[in-house]
Amino acid sequence: MFKIRALVTALTLVSSITVASAWDALPTEAPAPADNPTTAAKVDLGQLLYHDPRLSSTGTVSCASCHNTFLGGEDNRPNSVGVDGQKGGRSAPTVWNAAFNKVQFWDGRAASLEEQAAGPVTNPIEMGMASWDDVVTRLKTIDGYVAAFENVFGKDSISKENATKAIAAYERTLITPNSPYDRYANGDKNALNAQQIRGLEKVSELGCTSCHSGPAFNGPGVFQKFPVIPNGSLEASHHLSKDKGLAEVTKKADDEHLWKVPTLRNVALTAPYLHNGSAKTLEEAVKLMAKLQLGKDLSKDELADIVAFLNGLTGEFPKQKFPSLPATPGTTFTEK
Amino acid sequence: MFKIRALVTALTLVSSITVASAWDALPTEAPAPADNPTTAAKVDLGQLLYHDPRLSSTGTVSCASCHNTFLGGEDNRPNSVGVDGQKGGRSAPTVWNAAFNKVQFWDGRAASLEEQAAGPVTNPIEMGMASWDDVVTRLKTIDGYVAAFENVFGKDSISKENATKAIAAYERTLITPNSPYDRYANGDKNALNAQQIRGLEKVSELGCTSCHSGPAFNGPGVFQKFPVIPNGSLEASHHLSKDKGLAEVTKKADDEHLWKVPTLRNVALTAPYLHNGSAKTLEEAVKLMAKLQLGKDLSKDELADIVAFLNGLTGEFPKQKFPSLPATPGTTFTEK
Repeated sequence: MFKIRALVTALTLVSSITVASAWDALPTEAPAPADNPTTAAKVDLGQLLYHDPRLSSTGTVSCASCHNTFLGGEDNRPNSVGVDGQKGGRSAPTVWNAAFNKVQFWDGRAASLEEQAAGPVTNPIEMGMASWDDVVTRLKTIDGYVAAFENVFGKDSISKENATKAIAAYERTLITPNSPYDRYANGDKNALNAQQIRGLEKVSELGCTSCHSGPAFNGPGVFQKFPVIPNGSLEASHHLSKDKGLAEVTKKADDEHLWKVPTLRNVALTAPYLHNGSAKTLEEAVKLMAKLQLGKDLSKDELADIVAFLNGLTGEFPKQKFPSLPATPGTTFTEK
Repeated sequence: MFKIRALVTALTLVSSITVASAWDALPTEAPAPADNPTTAAKVDLGQLLYHDPRLSSTGTVSCASCHNTFLGGEDNRPNSVGVDGQKGGRSAPTVWNAAFNKVQFWDGRAASLEEQAAGPVTNPIEMGMASWDDVVTRLKTIDGYVAAFENVFGKDSISKENATKAIAAYERTLITPNSPYDRYANGDKNALNAQQIRGLEKVSELGCTSCHSGPAFNGPGVFQKFPVIPNGSLEASHHLSKDKGLAEVTKKADDEHLWKVPTLRNVALTAPYLHNGSAKTLEEAVKLMAKLQLGKDLSKDELADIVAFLNGLTGEFPKQKFPSLPATPGTTFTEK
């Protein structure tokens, strides 16, 4: 936690400085940590685990249930639905380009994709497994997983560490390049229309890019306070301060209402918006952010231009195999 | 309902005759009705609809949630979980080879895949949509669906009828040929091992094939009474007579405990078993069926041989595209 603390301090300082926006295209590959190099076989195994509902207590919820790879990488809901119909308090972040998040989860409590992947599986309101030991025991009964883990990690290698490494390796391939914005940044000046270019200039001029710049529009900082400007009426309607963000983890007053700055990539696909999903449309989200972070009331035209620009951040999904999960022949273990 | 009634009478008569088993391989194509010819574009649209959780009230349940195409075409649960964590009383039948079912649902209440596909979407404990009009209204807001329906069915063609036609066309492609049994039936006498061949002979000798024969092991009849032989102790443990099957629909005493004879294709993948999922393993299911339908107590060897044979009915899944669902840009409609 000390490391997170230092990071927060360093990076909230950085993020409070308005920087000149560099209009960068999204890299087509994500860097992998030294102890988890990306390999094709590992990515394939990770894809299976990511889409396997048997990683939940009831056999009904996979990573993909809330972070849907058929859609915008999440579930278009204000909050997600875990085992037994339980709902959490936060809106599922998109898995697309999560490899470029500097920290993971809304409150940034995980430093890596590997660390993040371990969390929901044993969260009682998400995937509900009693422990990772139970997950490992279950996976060991599935011959296809025994073979796939052996192929990637060596003999008798089914473990929490290796399962989360495989899932993270798969997630590093979930990158959506070649949006209209990327083509524009790469020199195709017709890739964005006039309204979108006005929107691009507006987000820079207003200061949105103080927090949302760089190739994933989630930096240069990591954490940001939200809301910055108190607003009783919006608080009454949207309850944005009810959840204390990073402070829910660290229990420190300084961390209250600090949140990971989310990527704006594919933002047009991920309604509803904000950490609690309380903004139903992209228009509403942009309006709220301008008011609560920058103290600005956007004109109708400004709003339309910015939303048009944000619609230009929708990239292309990579081609994937249709997963065929290893079978659990002749038996069931999906009831608690 | 009259037509179903006549069918039931005709076919329960047929199914009570023990027929010589013809060991047929599974066809690699399923016949389509004259008014719904299978086309590539229609199959693609059906695949999208089948995997789209936005066909449920909460945006969390798709056809694939309970009839999982990544696995054995169902969910390995005694009963499935619909919207808001609700559970039904029956075990989800597999979608693999459903094209070869003579009727659909456990109680055979739908005559076609098209008719079946309409049911779960508006079932309050399954996908929970208030009406198909609501589904159509929702699909019309998704530009990608407007275009895809137009491409397949013509302009302004989003409707219940066309959506269920597309889903049915997709399901007709979900065929799993080339199991060890199919290769054996096609002349490769080494495709089944000695134990599996003993099992094959045993299912014929015992009379399992009275109901489970033909290429999908679900005929020659359509409906069959279950349990046939009353057994107080098994009733106490498995509650098999609690659900009255077809009579729950027709309210006729003659239809009590009549069930569609399910396919045995890929049965090793679809635990737990029986209409209420009360048999946890394939061994238990075979033992129960022999006792309750044929009045036989199987020896340990007979049971092992039959289960070995049934494991030889696992086919090969067809190659599919990874679905990329049309987006719902900038808004959400997943909360009731």
